[in-house]
Amino acid sequence: MRTIQLQLPASIITGAGVINDLANDRNIVASQNLLFLTAAPLESMLQPVVDTLKANHTLQVIVYDFPGEPTFDLIRELLDQLTVQPDCVIGTGGGSVLDCAKLLAALCSRTQTPEEVVGMQLVKPRTTRLICIPTTAGTGSEMSPNAIFLDTASQAKSAVISKELVPDAAYLDPELTFGLPARLTAETGMDALSHCIEAYTNINAHPMIDLYALEGIRLIAANLLRAVKAGDDTNARSALLLGSMYGGICLGPVNTAAVHALSYGLGGKYHISHGLANAILLPSVMEFNAPASPDRHAEVARALGAVGSTNEALIRNGINLLRQLAIDCGIPQRLGEIGITQDAIPELVEIAMKVTRLLNNNPRKVSAEDASAIYQQLI
Amino acid sequence: MRTIQLQLPASIITGAGVINDLANDRNIVASQNLLFLTAAPLESMLQPVVDTLKANHTLQVIVYDFPGEPTFDLIRELLDQLTVQPDCVIGTGGGSVLDCAKLLAALCSRTQTPEEVVGMQLVKPRTTRLICIPTTAGTGSEMSPNAIFLDTASQAKSAVISKELVPDAAYLDPELTFGLPARLTAETGMDALSHCIEAYTNINAHPMIDLYALEGIRLIAANLLRAVKAGDDTNARSALLLGSMYGGICLGPVNTAAVHALSYGLGGKYHISHGLANAILLPSVMEFNAPASPDRHAEVARALGAVGSTNEALIRNGINLLRQLAIDCGIPQRLGEIGITQDAIPELVEIAMKVTRLLNNNPRKVSAEDASAIYQQLI
Repeated sequence: MRTIQLQLPASIITGAGVINDLANDRNIVASQNLLFLTAAPLESMLQPVVDTLKANHTLQVIVYDFPGEPTFDLIRELLDQLTVQPDCVIGTGGGSVLDCAKLLAALCSRTQTPEEVVGMQLVKPRTTRLICIPTTAGTGSEMSPNAIFLDTASQAKSAVISKELVPDAAYLDPELTFGLPARLTAETGMDALSHCIEAYTNINAHPMIDLYALEGIRLIAANLLRAVKAGDDTNARSALLLGSMYGGICLGPVNTAAVHALSYGLGGKYHISHGLANAILLPSVMEFNAPASPDRHAEVARALGAVGSTNEALIRNGINLLRQLAIDCGIPQRLGEIGITQDAIPELVEIAMKVTRLLNNNPRKVSAEDASAIYQQLI
Repeated sequence: MRTIQLQLPASIITGAGVINDLANDRNIVASQNLLFLTAAPLESMLQPVVDTLKANHTLQVIVYDFPGEPTFDLIRELLDQLTVQPDCVIGTGGGSVLDCAKLLAALCSRTQTPEEVVGMQLVKPRTTRLICIPTTAGTGSEMSPNAIFLDTASQAKSAVISKELVPDAAYLDPELTFGLPARLTAETGMDALSHCIEAYTNINAHPMIDLYALEGIRLIAANLLRAVKAGDDTNARSALLLGSMYGGICLGPVNTAAVHALSYGLGGKYHISHGLANAILLPSVMEFNAPASPDRHAEVARALGAVGSTNEALIRNGINLLRQLAIDCGIPQRLGEIGITQDAIPELVEIAMKVTRLLNNNPRKVSAEDASAIYQQLI
């Protein structure tokens, strides 16, 4: 068993209504100056929480209308808005909000610029506490060392990956996700599912992480459609938050692979939502990868709910289940349906082939021709 | 899904040889004064690690010949030995060493006495960093909020339970457990197994914890005999450390039940090792409990490796497997074999019935008569 470092939030608090106990969090109790970062559509829902934090702390609230993928310009703008250096940053929102909160907590001491921390483990020890509260399920950003930003110039994505970005506490409150529209529930859920599947079939897969990956697949596969159909189904929403959290745990020590590499250009260049891009790519990449690790893909299929007497049957049934789940959740099946045409492919391939950090994790080598064929099949 | 708080070490580092990287741990890098606590038999094995810590830090090493269950007198004695208040306590050893290290880290600021922290969540915020490195698999103390001490006067056990006792980092290095004799490997392994089984069949069982409990059962059942037979089997030792860690995760949010309650008097009064007491009690308590939650006990049996077409068959086969595993590992089957006679039963029952904290977790109500019958059956 190879060496592995699991960096997790020291506190993971889950359950309906746990957000109401936020003011008693040890990170908040130990802090004076709080920064509460969230997105405009969540503001009214979070007002009661903000009010309880105000009672005993100096609180700065930044409500931002996050425009798709966050950028370093946005981080600089947010840093400029800080009236005082916070002791604790609280991010509440989807992946963009959480990624921004994570980077703000790392950079608000002004010892490094965003550009200086792009890459692996370049963030200096963080002295500001950090709490992440997801309102989607999701990116799993509340668990991971990753924060992803769009490079405005190149339209590519920049990844900041550091154990310093793992929050000190994560609150998983299903009631905060009740209001997430069906389409976003579906897309973010498929993103979480892809984290788990890409970790389990990863060449760097590890037994400790397999545990989370398989449980995440089971939870999301069994509950995504229920949450899409009934947004206030507490059990389904709880299961998705757990599944997304498990997907987030996978990101640190194992990470994703070809699905995420191939989605880079779709997000960066064409502003297709991250979850949607991954959802469309996932079944085709699984078909491409399965021959390279049939046992692992058969196990994924089982966790998706498939049965079958051979690996081949299991895998076929598993991928069919996945496609049907996407259809039932209203997710487009083809890139063509979301405006990507044939002439986009060369540039998409070019962007994807640069993401060697993720392609190197893939169980089957992906050549430029392979990538092109996968996109082609999905037009 | 009920609300749950998972408090875990922010860093969990696993793998053969990871101890050699201890000096680079962020908790150590951020500290000046280190306290390294260990047990006499481990001293020479740990000398190289101690030497690397000395290079950049003021290091106090306390090597103690831990005499069975630790006491508060011992804690006071260790506190008196401190030449300087440490910024970081590193405990390396079995459950007694780790429990002492945890309490030292909590109390070395001298704001509370050991007696003041007995009970639930009474420890004030800990400012001293804490790293736990188990050399048994085991108590899972490296993951849990629990530290257990013997009350010298009453011969009963006192539990200090606080999230402040959860370490900041845990290192799971299988090579540190190579030297553990077969008998101790077997007994501590059965203890870890009982943590997992008692959490999964607990009335406070929770899906998040079930994940760890079942994986712990699978890992320990499949690897305990291998490690007992070949102490230097890295894969088996790694699996046991993981299983023990998962058992430790179970202790915080769910905890144990009747097996541990019934073992209190055996440990406190008769100084039977904790693992041995639990190992002898476990199959009989499972037989007693199974009718109250057959589905859960059948799942435990499956994780133990049993097959069967009905719950009853599965449970019977599972308990038989467990008894056979204990026999193969050289563990006595009866209390009579370890010197406990019939006339001890009334007092054992009296001590056990006071451990309501754990008895209340049990899937089946345990009356004094029930407890007496279980002991009786094992004489």
